[in-house]
Amino acid sequence: MDRSFVPFGKPRAERADAVRNREHLLRTAREMIAELGIERVTMDGLAERAGLGKGTVFRRFGSRAGIFRALLDADERRFQQHVISGPPPLGPGAEPVERLLAYGRARITFLLDHHAIARASFERGRPVPAGDPSVTQLHIRMLLRQIGPIPSLDGIAIQLTAALEGPLLLYVSRPETDVGLAAETGAFLGDAWQTLIERLVR
Amino acid sequence: MDRSFVPFGKPRAERADAVRNREHLLRTAREMIAELGIERVTMDGLAERAGLGKGTVFRRFGSRAGIFRALLDADERRFQQHVISGPPPLGPGAEPVERLLAYGRARITFLLDHHAIARASFERGRPVPAGDPSVTQLHIRMLLRQIGPIPSLDGIAIQLTAALEGPLLLYVSRPETDVGLAAETGAFLGDAWQTLIERLVR
Repeated sequence: MDRSFVPFGKPRAERADAVRNREHLLRTAREMIAELGIERVTMDGLAERAGLGKGTVFRRFGSRAGIFRALLDADERRFQQHVISGPPPLGPGAEPVERLLAYGRARITFLLDHHAIARASFERGRPVPAGDPSVTQLHIRMLLRQIGPIPSLDGIAIQLTAALEGPLLLYVSRPETDVGLAAETGAFLGDAWQTLIERLVR
Repeated sequence: MDRSFVPFGKPRAERADAVRNREHLLRTAREMIAELGIERVTMDGLAERAGLGKGTVFRRFGSRAGIFRALLDADERRFQQHVISGPPPLGPGAEPVERLLAYGRARITFLLDHHAIARASFERGRPVPAGDPSVTQLHIRMLLRQIGPIPSLDGIAIQLTAALEGPLLLYVSRPETDVGLAAETGAFLGDAWQTLIERLVR
């Protein structure tokens, strides 16, 4: 009701400022993670390094875990952007089976690369941030439909989503995973995904 | 060191007593769930109905959620017993593919039947009780090996475990699931499991 009385310029300027602050904070958080490690990223440290007030950081993220949720969210969007409009075979333009294989390997790598951030985004008393499995599920279902009629296709899309993401989500709830092991695990699970899909569609 | 001085009869009798108490408490808890619903099972209510002291119930389960963890654990053991030594096709004696199909359907039914108890066994600040996926994983891997050489077999066993249990574990973290929906979901996921396995091994 009162909205028409608020000068247009003000909220817009504030919004642009907020976006800039947010991007600046996320960039600074990434630098701190790379230099110091996740464990040593704190709300106070981030505010100091970003040259912003603690209040700004608190309003933006709510908690230390909120910083990592925001980072995860930003990377997740970028990943989905590659899937929607990036080069094939992950992006459009390849055969649906090729896209399904590429999606599996890319998603495994993404989840392995982000397991430490995902773990840091946990918060006591809040539900486990299981990502948004529906994006993976919708993509798998779309590609299966393009491949052709498969009995119980919708149920299989749900189960393949769990097959792909479940083993990596379990890693998240475990203590520190060795990086070497992670790369090996990625290849191991990627090969298994390939066999599963190739046999499903042959 | 002092153990030899303790009369043998005493600890044995106490242990048998503890087992009896435990079984009596679990049986009473099941009656209360059936009559009152899970929400109305409390530590005090259980102690009163079982005719035991509150201290006994507390020492036995530690918390209200502990009651449900104990129930889940008992049912899980019974389920695994059917798999190990029950009649085919779930138990031994059928072809490995038939056992794999039977295991999938039985496991889905088990997880759906137990989703309310599993949810009640959650505890703030404790890790999510994800059951023991390794039992399912070991069983799937054993049956796949009996079926014959499959590339990336061990990785596929991990992914099939997630495909089977993951979608049901997600239910657990959601609010109350409608029972009718649950039965329908079981058939839906069971059919998908069948297609997935039949295509994997054909």
